[in-house]
Amino acid sequence: MATVDRWLLPDGIEEVLPAEAERIESARRRMLDLFQRWGYEFVITPHMEFLESLLVHAGHDLDLRTFKVVDPLSGRQMGLRADITPQVARLDAHALRRQGPARLCYAGSVLHAKPRALSTSRSPIQLGAELYGDSSAGSDLEVISLMLEMLELSEVPDVHMDLGHVGIYRGLVRAAGLDGEAEQALFDALQRKAMDEVTMLTSGLESGLAGMLRALARLCGGREILEVAETTLASAPADVREALATLRQLSAQLAVRHPQLPLYFDLGELRGYHYHTGVVFAAFVPGSGQSIAQGGRYDDIGADFGRARPATGFSADLKTLVVLGNAQWSVAPCGIWAPVLDDPALWQQVSALRRAGERVVQALEGQGLDEARAAGCDRQLRLQDDSWSVVPLVH
Amino acid sequence: MATVDRWLLPDGIEEVLPAEAERIESARRRMLDLFQRWGYEFVITPHMEFLESLLVHAGHDLDLRTFKVVDPLSGRQMGLRADITPQVARLDAHALRRQGPARLCYAGSVLHAKPRALSTSRSPIQLGAELYGDSSAGSDLEVISLMLEMLELSEVPDVHMDLGHVGIYRGLVRAAGLDGEAEQALFDALQRKAMDEVTMLTSGLESGLAGMLRALARLCGGREILEVAETTLASAPADVREALATLRQLSAQLAVRHPQLPLYFDLGELRGYHYHTGVVFAAFVPGSGQSIAQGGRYDDIGADFGRARPATGFSADLKTLVVLGNAQWSVAPCGIWAPVLDDPALWQQVSALRRAGERVVQALEGQGLDEARAAGCDRQLRLQDDSWSVVPLVH
Repeated sequence: MATVDRWLLPDGIEEVLPAEAERIESARRRMLDLFQRWGYEFVITPHMEFLESLLVHAGHDLDLRTFKVVDPLSGRQMGLRADITPQVARLDAHALRRQGPARLCYAGSVLHAKPRALSTSRSPIQLGAELYGDSSAGSDLEVISLMLEMLELSEVPDVHMDLGHVGIYRGLVRAAGLDGEAEQALFDALQRKAMDEVTMLTSGLESGLAGMLRALARLCGGREILEVAETTLASAPADVREALATLRQLSAQLAVRHPQLPLYFDLGELRGYHYHTGVVFAAFVPGSGQSIAQGGRYDDIGADFGRARPATGFSADLKTLVVLGNAQWSVAPCGIWAPVLDDPALWQQVSALRRAGERVVQALEGQGLDEARAAGCDRQLRLQDDSWSVVPLVH
Repeated sequence: MATVDRWLLPDGIEEVLPAEAERIESARRRMLDLFQRWGYEFVITPHMEFLESLLVHAGHDLDLRTFKVVDPLSGRQMGLRADITPQVARLDAHALRRQGPARLCYAGSVLHAKPRALSTSRSPIQLGAELYGDSSAGSDLEVISLMLEMLELSEVPDVHMDLGHVGIYRGLVRAAGLDGEAEQALFDALQRKAMDEVTMLTSGLESGLAGMLRALARLCGGREILEVAETTLASAPADVREALATLRQLSAQLAVRHPQLPLYFDLGELRGYHYHTGVVFAAFVPGSGQSIAQGGRYDDIGADFGRARPATGFSADLKTLVVLGNAQWSVAPCGIWAPVLDDPALWQQVSALRRAGERVVQALEGQGLDEARAAGCDRQLRLQDDSWSVVPLVH
């Protein structure tokens, strides 16, 4: 590799320069503070761990997106985290072991071996909040509300939200006795809304269930679609009708809390890496095919770590929120310029100002007031009557 | 792997639970704010990049500690960052390209394939600050002072500091015409203070230089050792004597700024991954063989990225600072407990309190005041005269 190539970063792997890095850091703090005000406690999960832990409950999709390395100490395969949610579930189930509900949040880099879509970053900063130990729809409402608050704080304009419930599809295929490859094929066809395939794959089923499964692909639209679904799924198994009732309840509550928010429902769409079990949701903005924040219920993921717990939560990419949002994350810098001089009295004054919260930039050899301005300083330290005083930055 | 094993993390890879994670997050913010007050700008470097970029100027040591993976997109070898300093040097030389000096700082996880020492973490959170574009001793003084301020803010007790200058050894071996394997062998012997080997390896050299090289291993101790060195190295080449003069100047300045700080000098010790070129320094505490913060000058590292720049800086592990320091990073939580109730008026009151900066935890099904206290709440929302009021947390 020639010298000239050495600085090229791999596709989708970014470095962040000062102005943007400050915005990201500021957004990160504001978001974690928001989560904290809602009672969510911050946790830090490892950047890599044994592959078996990392890919618990994961679909083929997450497996493909996970970088693998062999641990020289244990000889076992490890993976770089491509998603923090399963790690937090493990932490809740195993390390934390609280009896009652636990609210946890996190912010950290993840790495993707393959990008989610063309020109998508392979190194997002995943930010999220999870609520464990409570299976009520109240928890789903809380995490959805918190996600919307996060988007509002970021000042992301024109947000709309998609809502669905994995239990509707799950309940229907279970009643139809579908599993394994047949269920997977139907799932794939539904995601692509490939109606011919859906019709073919359901042709051998009991006609009522087949009709309802085929209807799923068309059950998408505004709030009115829930009324249509009520009729279409009237003869569905009890768990399917319960799932629909949960969606209707959430829809009504969100209409009160966020009356301006456009809500869409898609009963055939099933987000997530196959680990969701209930309500699923995602926020979108016009012009972007990818969701900018998403989540859902994923009960029992902890069972693989020795303890089944109800769970619901969401995540987003912090960098995307900073890019798409209009929030003014950083303030214009100000500061005091100190001359280049090895004077103990100056040093004491500089130290005192910094302890008082001031930004003080010390000049280096050959630097003058132009550099002071470039460094964002609006004042300077000057020797007056034998003592160092802060004066405006003028000649 | 049995279910019971799945939660075991690899050796040296840690997860951090709420109380500790909050302390680390709080320390991280305080440290970055400190760096900001000194004029250092925050940057974010990637967690992985092409191996050639990552291992520029790196010794065998860093190579062995770097996890390697193949990039499925480019087919090229990538490494997980084991040290952030060379990344920031690349960012300064290539992406930032400022004409004058640049002060940069960072905080982020690094991963080590092999731990630095037995029972050392393989996933520290590296925190550091670097000053580019200025070759004066003033820059070295600034970064050393900032490092000491960081340790003071962490309230790490009983810190002492080792100072050295790579230029002394480098100047002597250059004058002696040593290079390649011979120089490496002498370097290794000096680090181990293996006097027999040092004597043997220098036996063929001009006697004055041989004497000075042998003397290096013994030139360690308090400030007085600089006086001894002045005599011992009196006939050394000019660059060696200049390096010694720089150390004497720094020693005098640090005595003024930090009169209580015990300073030790070791003219034969050469820290870093072979990339240091001038002053080197490290802070220690009693009972720990590893330094808790360290740094030095590494001019010209940017040359491999197209631009040679003077550079000096330091780094530390944030987790270690939190563990060894006595600073009270987190405050006792307080908050307001809200009942489990789907009342729009309650929701509005909760939202208003959170926007005002209050922490409000909403009860979930079946939770009572015991859970409120466990969640750190000291007040609660109660319906009085048809409106929601904040009252003390009592029955």
